[in-house]
Amino acid sequence: MEIAGIPIEIHDLDRNAMEDARRRQASLTKPPGSLGLLEEISVRLCGIKGEMTADLGGKVIILCAADHGVVEEGVSAYPQEVTAQMLANFADRGAAINVLAGYAGARVVLVDIGTVGEGSLPGVVDRRIRAGTANIAQGPAMSRKEAERAVATGIELAGQEISGGAGMIATGDMGIGNTTPSSALVAAFTGLPAEAVVGRGTGLDDTALDAKTRVVEKALAANRPGSDDPVGALAGVGGLEIGAMAGVILGGAMERVPVVIDGFISGAAALLAERICPGAKNFMFASHLSEEPGHKAALDELSLEPFINLNMRLGEGTGAALAMPVIEVALKLLNEMATFDEAGVSRESG
Amino acid sequence: MEIAGIPIEIHDLDRNAMEDARRRQASLTKPPGSLGLLEEISVRLCGIKGEMTADLGGKVIILCAADHGVVEEGVSAYPQEVTAQMLANFADRGAAINVLAGYAGARVVLVDIGTVGEGSLPGVVDRRIRAGTANIAQGPAMSRKEAERAVATGIELAGQEISGGAGMIATGDMGIGNTTPSSALVAAFTGLPAEAVVGRGTGLDDTALDAKTRVVEKALAANRPGSDDPVGALAGVGGLEIGAMAGVILGGAMERVPVVIDGFISGAAALLAERICPGAKNFMFASHLSEEPGHKAALDELSLEPFINLNMRLGEGTGAALAMPVIEVALKLLNEMATFDEAGVSRESG
Repeated sequence: MEIAGIPIEIHDLDRNAMEDARRRQASLTKPPGSLGLLEEISVRLCGIKGEMTADLGGKVIILCAADHGVVEEGVSAYPQEVTAQMLANFADRGAAINVLAGYAGARVVLVDIGTVGEGSLPGVVDRRIRAGTANIAQGPAMSRKEAERAVATGIELAGQEISGGAGMIATGDMGIGNTTPSSALVAAFTGLPAEAVVGRGTGLDDTALDAKTRVVEKALAANRPGSDDPVGALAGVGGLEIGAMAGVILGGAMERVPVVIDGFISGAAALLAERICPGAKNFMFASHLSEEPGHKAALDELSLEPFINLNMRLGEGTGAALAMPVIEVALKLLNEMATFDEAGVSRESG
Repeated sequence: MEIAGIPIEIHDLDRNAMEDARRRQASLTKPPGSLGLLEEISVRLCGIKGEMTADLGGKVIILCAADHGVVEEGVSAYPQEVTAQMLANFADRGAAINVLAGYAGARVVLVDIGTVGEGSLPGVVDRRIRAGTANIAQGPAMSRKEAERAVATGIELAGQEISGGAGMIATGDMGIGNTTPSSALVAAFTGLPAEAVVGRGTGLDDTALDAKTRVVEKALAANRPGSDDPVGALAGVGGLEIGAMAGVILGGAMERVPVVIDGFISGAAALLAERICPGAKNFMFASHLSEEPGHKAALDELSLEPFINLNMRLGEGTGAALAMPVIEVALKLLNEMATFDEAGVSRESG
């Protein structure tokens, strides 16, 4: 499997390393399984790294921004100019993701993969493929070549960060209107009807929600995306930042680096990545459960379990930033807790 | 209202401070409400402190340990000696709570409020009221005076920590057999039948679960605890660490300090605190949702919403430790994010 000339190859999880981790979990001073998902996270991290590992390395949030032609259908409560304005706000460290990246001890890499603005913003990596997508309700979002370039750019960005020391990557997004293409992609990849995956985004009322559902149905009818051609689906009803985030996920998985999936847009990108290369999901960790109904549909399809429930619906990587330290501490528990023998604690009877 | 001569007085939340916080939330660069529960947490924290506050101060986990006479009914998979062994493990920093307290940047205060062991452990505050409770299936756990002393000790411990700079307190527990008295208390305070609140604790099979349910029913029949006399209920079917944790919660609320509630045992203590002094719940924050079914019943009764779902069932304060930094960052978001005006970002239309 290749994308824009880049071979996509993803390893299996290392079963031996997972067995070692499971054996150690069973020896630690707690009832077996009482740390719940934290135990499973630690075991899978060892499977990803291929060894009983203690430290993952640096944390990076790759935040991809783009614009969407479909906003002309009135699918968002905010004007399109907000994409670039928020990108400037991220660069000035004024947004929620900046506060939460500080909390997580993660660096934020800002990538403009296709906003409509002109000129480059300081602090933003300019990798614009085109000035926003075309209106998916009328035809394809972009060409197949552009879709491939978006994914390839994400792979490249992840590779650069990993070379620079990143050991855990999170995805984040910004793009006014991007819940609409995400809904269309999740519908295409799960077979669910539009109304099951469309939500209120940044704050639509009932009438606007209905209209948005009609727009997604129109986009699906106009472009006929499906699981058998994931890159074609991205070109048809997707978005540039969704493609780039799918690339970031694939790039992490190719290098055995865990990738933390943020909210709905990231969930659509995760599903796209898994459709492009089955097995990618083994390297993904869910974070929070978004208020957008399509998010749960995407995570269920990937068998990923979100563990933070704060009713958030912001994107930017905010949910992933809250989850990164939890994933890290799962490994710390595995490595730093005392065993029953070390601590002289009696085991269960029977 | 008085307990062991200590007057219990808890203020209302400060409505003006909450209004100020709500107004600022609405001005920040994000769609209104998109940070979900994080926004509500920040608003309530301001209501607790009585002002728009930026920093709460130090974090402390008060971990109370005790033994339970009811273990002679075979309600736990572990022998009673494990309570003291785990207390020693906490003091040696080998347990899950030690790793997670480090993660949270919190200090752990270890309190022996009534184990059966003799002599004091280094690093453990010895406040033993009696050497474990009596078997609640046969009669009262302790005298009313001992129950009052347990609660009063918790109030005193919280007060000492607050004087020493603590601005956020979490409850944690250790006590082989303590899901049984917790189930009995939650049943007594919610009116739910035993089978709705009894769970597998550290790992019972179906037969043992049935037997445990019968034990809780016997304890309820033998002691007839009710919401009209919460301290009497504690004396009848409770535990010393449950009483002390209820005291810690009341002590925090009395000094306008938020208290983070851990899992099921802490949830029973939280319900006890609210029954002793209605309004205490305004100062409580839920953390994770335990696998024990009685935990959800207790939190629902208190209208508290847990936001971490890791299927944990360990106690010790482990869930609360994971939540403390999230509660703290909710306040950081309120204080550090840029407003729409500051960042020059356009607001929503319509």
